[in-house]
Amino acid sequence: MDGAVTAPAGFTAAGVAAGIKKNGNADVAVIAAETPCAAAGVFTINKAKAAPVLLSMAHLEASGGRAQAVIVNAGCANACTGEQGSADAREMAALTASILGCEQEEVLVASTGVIGVSLPMTNVRAGIEHALSARTPSGGGDAGLAIMTTDPFPKSQAVECVLADGRTFRVGGIAKGSGMIEPRMATMLAFLTTDVEIEPDLLRRALVQAVDRTFNVITVDGECSTNDCAIVMASGASGTRIADADLDDFAMALAHVSGAMARDIVRGGEGATKLVEITVSGAATEGDAWLAARTVANSPLVKTAIHGGDPNWGRIVAAAGRSGAAFEIERVSVAIGGVHVFERGVPHDERAGAAAEIFRQKEIAIVIDLGLGDAAATMWTCDFSAEYVRINGEYRT
Amino acid sequence: MDGAVTAPAGFTAAGVAAGIKKNGNADVAVIAAETPCAAAGVFTINKAKAAPVLLSMAHLEASGGRAQAVIVNAGCANACTGEQGSADAREMAALTASILGCEQEEVLVASTGVIGVSLPMTNVRAGIEHALSARTPSGGGDAGLAIMTTDPFPKSQAVECVLADGRTFRVGGIAKGSGMIEPRMATMLAFLTTDVEIEPDLLRRALVQAVDRTFNVITVDGECSTNDCAIVMASGASGTRIADADLDDFAMALAHVSGAMARDIVRGGEGATKLVEITVSGAATEGDAWLAARTVANSPLVKTAIHGGDPNWGRIVAAAGRSGAAFEIERVSVAIGGVHVFERGVPHDERAGAAAEIFRQKEIAIVIDLGLGDAAATMWTCDFSAEYVRINGEYRT
Repeated sequence: MDGAVTAPAGFTAAGVAAGIKKNGNADVAVIAAETPCAAAGVFTINKAKAAPVLLSMAHLEASGGRAQAVIVNAGCANACTGEQGSADAREMAALTASILGCEQEEVLVASTGVIGVSLPMTNVRAGIEHALSARTPSGGGDAGLAIMTTDPFPKSQAVECVLADGRTFRVGGIAKGSGMIEPRMATMLAFLTTDVEIEPDLLRRALVQAVDRTFNVITVDGECSTNDCAIVMASGASGTRIADADLDDFAMALAHVSGAMARDIVRGGEGATKLVEITVSGAATEGDAWLAARTVANSPLVKTAIHGGDPNWGRIVAAAGRSGAAFEIERVSVAIGGVHVFERGVPHDERAGAAAEIFRQKEIAIVIDLGLGDAAATMWTCDFSAEYVRINGEYRT
Repeated sequence: MDGAVTAPAGFTAAGVAAGIKKNGNADVAVIAAETPCAAAGVFTINKAKAAPVLLSMAHLEASGGRAQAVIVNAGCANACTGEQGSADAREMAALTASILGCEQEEVLVASTGVIGVSLPMTNVRAGIEHALSARTPSGGGDAGLAIMTTDPFPKSQAVECVLADGRTFRVGGIAKGSGMIEPRMATMLAFLTTDVEIEPDLLRRALVQAVDRTFNVITVDGECSTNDCAIVMASGASGTRIADADLDDFAMALAHVSGAMARDIVRGGEGATKLVEITVSGAATEGDAWLAARTVANSPLVKTAIHGGDPNWGRIVAAAGRSGAAFEIERVSVAIGGVHVFERGVPHDERAGAAAEIFRQKEIAIVIDLGLGDAAATMWTCDFSAEYVRINGEYRT
C-alpha cells in the first residue's frame, strides 16, 4: 500500500530541500505524531557513535520510550564532530520541539552523509522550520526521498495487518542505504510507524525481534556505520492494542516491512547489480553459522566473482574455511541456485556451466552446508562492482 | 644482490612453462639443495587447506624438519579437489624425489591459482621433469617468474649478512601475491633459502619470528588463502653455524628479505596503486591495536578513499570504532602523513587540503592514536581500485 510512514493513522511527514546536499535535492525530513507516543530505537554498535545517535539514545532513556517526532537530515552525518556536533544535534531537537510544543526529550534526531564535517546550521534551521510547516498526512514518500544519500532509489513499505480476532493495524516505513552497510543491531537509517496502541517496552521488544531478522542480516560492504539507527513510533490511532499475546504477530508485521526495505537496501547497495542470499546450514553452532555466513557475504573475492558472473565456488569454500567456524572440508557442500558444485569435499566443475547460468540472474541463492550440525543462518548481500569503487573514491569530491 | 633463492650457496633452481597457465607463461618452479637439509614452513590457518599444504605439513613432520627440494606450480591451486587432489600432490613429490634420489618426505609441494579445479597432471609431470633438468645455480629469478599468478611483477630479494664476529651468510627469497592476501601465520607463497648451518628447530623459530613481523602484517583484500605458505631451506654451504645466541640476528636477516617481499606483495596487490602503512598507537592492549589496525587496513571505504585521493578521515575513525577495540572518541587522534586531521575528538577539516596532498603520494602513512594505553601495531595495505574488481570478476573467464 502507498504512504510509507504516513500509511498508519496519526502521522504527518515531509521532506524538503535545505541546501545541505550539494546537488540541491531534498535533505531534511520530519515524521511527527499528533501527541507524544510510544517509541523505541536500536542504534549502531560502532563505538564512534555520531552526535544524533547519542542524543536519540539519551532522549528515549529520559522520556521512558516516548516521542512525538523524528527530525532527520541527509548530506552530513554530524559524526566525529566533537562538542560542536553535540550542540548542533541538541539544537535540532530543541527547534523541532519548540515548533511542535513538546518536550526536547520527545524529539529524536538522525543524520546521514559525510563523516567529520560540521552541520551547516543556518541551512539546517531553515530546513527544520520549512519541513515542519510542510507536513501532511501523505508526506511519507517525500520524507523517504529526503533521507537518501548515494541510494539509487528510495525505500519505503507499508502494510495493513489483520490479527486472528479481526482487529487491524498498519505498519509503514522508510529507510536508506547504501554504503557503509553491515548494521549489526540497527541499519543505516530506518523509520517505522504504526497505529497500534502499545507499551514502550513491548514496542522495543518487537522492534529488536524484527531488526534482528531483517536489517541485522544484510551487508553491502561490511562497514558498520557511526549513524545506524532504526526507530519506531506507535500512534495508537487505530485503537488496536498490542498485548503480550499479540507481540509475535506485531513483530512479524514490523519484520515484513523491515525485511522488504532491508532487501531493497542491498539491491540498492553502492554499485550493486545483484541481490545474493547466503545460507550456511549444517553448522556446529549458531555462532558458527553466522560467522561463516557473514564471512562469505563480505568476501570481496566472492562478491567480485558474482559480479563477473563467474561461478568460482572455490572462493566460497575458502571464505568459509577462513571464517573461524568449525570446518571439515570433506563434509562441506556448496550449491549455487540448486546446482551442487561441491559435494562433501568433492568438486563438480563439470557443473560450472549450469552454475554460470544461475550467476547471470539478478537474484542468486547460495547454500553452504558445513555438514557438522543443525545450526543455520542466512545473510543478504550484493555483488561488488567497479561502480562501488568509483562512488566511494569520489564521494566528497 | 642478485640471484633470489640461488644467491645463498648450495641451491639450484629453475622455472619452466608446462602449459598449466592459459597464457603460456612459466608455471613450474623448483628450488633444490644438493642433499637433504634443515627446512621449516609456516602454513595458512584457513581450515580449507589445499592438498599441497597438507602434504608439505605432513612431510616436514615425517622428516623431522628436513627437505631437499620444493616443487611449485602456478595456474591451479589444487585446493578443494578432494582425494584426487591429495593423490596429485603426492605424485608431484614422488616424481621429484625419484629424479633427485631423495625420500618423498624430503620434497615439499606448493600450488597457487584457481581453487576447485584438478591439476592437469600430464602437463605437471612433464613440467617437473623439465624443471629438474633445467636447474642452475643462478635460476632463482626464473623460479620467481614461474610462481606468479596475477602479480604485476615478480618479488625476490637476497642479502649477505655479517655477524658481529665476522662470519657471513646469505639469505634469498622469492614470493608471489597478489589477491586473496591477508596471510595471518603465512603468506600466499614465499620460499626462502640460506646457506647457514642450523638445526631445524632453530630454523623454524627464526622463520616464525620473521614471518610474524612481515608477511603476517600485510593485507590486500582481507582474504586468507587456502594455499598460503612460507618455506625456508638452509643448505649449510657457507659454513656459518647459527646457534641460539645468533638466532635474533638470523631472524632479522630473514625478516629483512621477507619484509621487502611482503611490501612488494602489497605494492603489487591486485589493482593496487599505493602502499599504505596503518599504525594504531595508544591502544589499551596489543590485541586491540591489531584489531583496530586490521579493521582499518581492510576497510573498503578507507581503501577506496585512498584510491580516490580523498582524505576522508571520518571513515578511518568509523572503521576503528567498529573494530571492537576499546575506543573513546574524545581521546582519538588521526594523522595522515603527519597532518593531524582529528585531534582528541575534534575535527580539523580545514587541514583537508594538506591531507589531500599526502593522499596523492604513492606511499602513505596513517597513524591512529587511540589515546588509551601504550600498545601499538602496524599493518601494510594498499588502495582498492576498480581494477581489483575487473581482475577478480574475470579471473577464470
